[in-house]
Amino acid sequence: MELEKTMSLENTFDQRLKELSSIGSDPTGGMTRLLYTDSWKQAQEYVKKQMESMGMTTQFDKVGNLFGRVEGTELPNETIMSGSHIDTVVNGGTLDGQFGVVAALTASQLLLEKYGKPRRSLEVISMAEEEGSRFPTVFWGSKNFVGIADNDEIKDIEDAEGYKFVDEMHRQGFDTNEKQIKRDDIKAFVEGHIEQGSILETEHEQIGIVNSIAGQRRYNITLKGEANHAGTTPLNYRHDAVYGMSKMISKALDRAHEIGDPLVLTFGKVVPKPNTVNVVPGEVLFTMDCRHTDKNFLSKFTKEVEDMMRQIAKEMGLGIDIDLWMDEAPVPMDDHIVKIIEKKAKEGKYNYRIMHSGAGHDSQIIAPNFPTAMIFVPSIKGISHNPAESTKLKDLVEGVKLLADTLYELAYK
Amino acid sequence: MELEKTMSLENTFDQRLKELSSIGSDPTGGMTRLLYTDSWKQAQEYVKKQMESMGMTTQFDKVGNLFGRVEGTELPNETIMSGSHIDTVVNGGTLDGQFGVVAALTASQLLLEKYGKPRRSLEVISMAEEEGSRFPTVFWGSKNFVGIADNDEIKDIEDAEGYKFVDEMHRQGFDTNEKQIKRDDIKAFVEGHIEQGSILETEHEQIGIVNSIAGQRRYNITLKGEANHAGTTPLNYRHDAVYGMSKMISKALDRAHEIGDPLVLTFGKVVPKPNTVNVVPGEVLFTMDCRHTDKNFLSKFTKEVEDMMRQIAKEMGLGIDIDLWMDEAPVPMDDHIVKIIEKKAKEGKYNYRIMHSGAGHDSQIIAPNFPTAMIFVPSIKGISHNPAESTKLKDLVEGVKLLADTLYELAYK
Repeated sequence: MELEKTMSLENTFDQRLKELSSIGSDPTGGMTRLLYTDSWKQAQEYVKKQMESMGMTTQFDKVGNLFGRVEGTELPNETIMSGSHIDTVVNGGTLDGQFGVVAALTASQLLLEKYGKPRRSLEVISMAEEEGSRFPTVFWGSKNFVGIADNDEIKDIEDAEGYKFVDEMHRQGFDTNEKQIKRDDIKAFVEGHIEQGSILETEHEQIGIVNSIAGQRRYNITLKGEANHAGTTPLNYRHDAVYGMSKMISKALDRAHEIGDPLVLTFGKVVPKPNTVNVVPGEVLFTMDCRHTDKNFLSKFTKEVEDMMRQIAKEMGLGIDIDLWMDEAPVPMDDHIVKIIEKKAKEGKYNYRIMHSGAGHDSQIIAPNFPTAMIFVPSIKGISHNPAESTKLKDLVEGVKLLADTLYELAYK
Repeated sequence: MELEKTMSLENTFDQRLKELSSIGSDPTGGMTRLLYTDSWKQAQEYVKKQMESMGMTTQFDKVGNLFGRVEGTELPNETIMSGSHIDTVVNGGTLDGQFGVVAALTASQLLLEKYGKPRRSLEVISMAEEEGSRFPTVFWGSKNFVGIADNDEIKDIEDAEGYKFVDEMHRQGFDTNEKQIKRDDIKAFVEGHIEQGSILETEHEQIGIVNSIAGQRRYNITLKGEANHAGTTPLNYRHDAVYGMSKMISKALDRAHEIGDPLVLTFGKVVPKPNTVNVVPGEVLFTMDCRHTDKNFLSKFTKEVEDMMRQIAKEMGLGIDIDLWMDEAPVPMDDHIVKIIEKKAKEGKYNYRIMHSGAGHDSQIIAPNFPTAMIFVPSIKGISHNPAESTKLKDLVEGVKLLADTLYELAYK
């Protein structure tokens, strides 16, 4: 691409991101744009106008996913799609989700301006919801898009202030009276997203080409011992829940460090009872979050940790309850699309790496249904879900350019 | 003692304990009798009447410690004293504190009825406060009794509802306009108390003769790492505060178990940040409570643990702050009185053990000033500071009998 185009790309992208970020800017910090709120609707309307301004026909589906489409000249029934989600967490940043929407808009505009109409149909999607930050549901947008949303699940749910999901959906003009049908025209979906980690930054790379989204298992583990006076109970009389937990956590993490990437293991939450300085803790609840890109390995490793925990509990006379409450399988990205992105990255001399995503994304819902891949740009210090979420403009623009190159290959060739 | 006397001792003791327990009975559970409340004053008035009914002259000191005295016939300036504290924790039991008061009253009554006036003066003390449950002060009773209370400390303090310490003290008719002077007539102090642990119960013993009160050190330890996304941050990028804590706790407790009695070590409180399943914990605050009967050993062992913690923090790239906020030296009991109690226990064929106290007591304040020892009775399941605090009546009565035997030896011989 010529220099002028690149400059205009940067300006167009930057202005669009700034305009969209002004919708839902939270006075308490960062951006808060929750599903079916007025700022959420305003943001979707802004994206709709942008789509229309570049000649796309637009359409909301029944639940509020927004589509902008340019019909393909030769193969209109083969659709190449890009986009991400429009909602944010509470006090989130301006990139998680909407970077992928603005990148898809801007890359499409660049292609349309430069090359005219595509051979295959080109679509941008701005998905309704991914974060699960207002109602107890996640991936509401992508699950509806691929036709696997369960409308019974949202029938009775409400937000923290007591607003019902269905009432809020109706208020914004959407409904779920009919289940959405999976489309059969989608030949490729490419999602741009920030990394939300610090690998690219640390390794001085500008692009991550995602070949897999890690599977994850989340557990609540409860150990039951006996609460005793910290002064009057000899050590050999005790059933100390925090002692048991400490052995388990240090042993599990020692083992995980031996194994290394792509395994990650986190004990993020610890709540002893009664949680006071001079009482031997009689109980402790702690969480375990384990992720890996290989389903069998994830099962095998977590089984090993569970067995180790039960063994320690037995040795220490502690009751143990291990509750696996989330079990998401790893999701491989489409090999063919990954190869196309890598080919374009090589041709364009992008500084890239092939990597997996440790975080969850809409792409993990879409990939089992349509050929899917993701393009990551760096996150400064790996921060996201936070007002400090940030990426250098030149890194964002590199991502948009590679996305455009990829969509060109998929839709124009 | 004859059988009739023993029977009447049991009845007298039981009735007195029940009557006193009815004052301050808490509708939300157990007993709540906080310093300078009306139920506290009623309880002291009840004890005063009991003292008077057995021919004692009574006196409150300036802050509300209550004394009942029978003048010695031969050595009136040598006083033998017994008692404990009248206050309780919130929703406490009926034995912690007042067992020692009722035991002293009942043992004294038995001696006066059976042997008449003592050679040395005999006193019962019902101390104003030990628990620190209403105001941020502990041992207010015993510290005033031995003349080491610091009146500046209570000048500005108030309870959780905003009542000022000094106002409540004045309301009940007490004051601190003059510092109390340490008496020079006390030749022995013997405190009866429940064990608040389960050693006596487990070992099937009815009496514990306390030869030492353990010293204790309490710490707040803060580890600072880095909060990161649990999915996108590889293990070798992390500075996981909970991982560091787990290594420290398991290592310290492994070592403490190797050493064993009388060392106890407790990590009762754990508060990670942000304390959520999918974030690598960037910070954790945890407490350490360490007790031992030997001052040098306590210093040496906690130093060893501190060094180990700093070493682990260094290896793991964690910041560490170790705050020692309580450092109470162990307090040995008076060897001579311990021997007298043991002699009486042997003569009376009591089923006893010599032991240390892991919990704090008024005796630790009194012992550095006057010859002091304690007699423990068993606590069912070691429970105290709880409505379920309980001891079999026959065990309580054994304690009263041994106390009477001891006071006889000290005051009548």
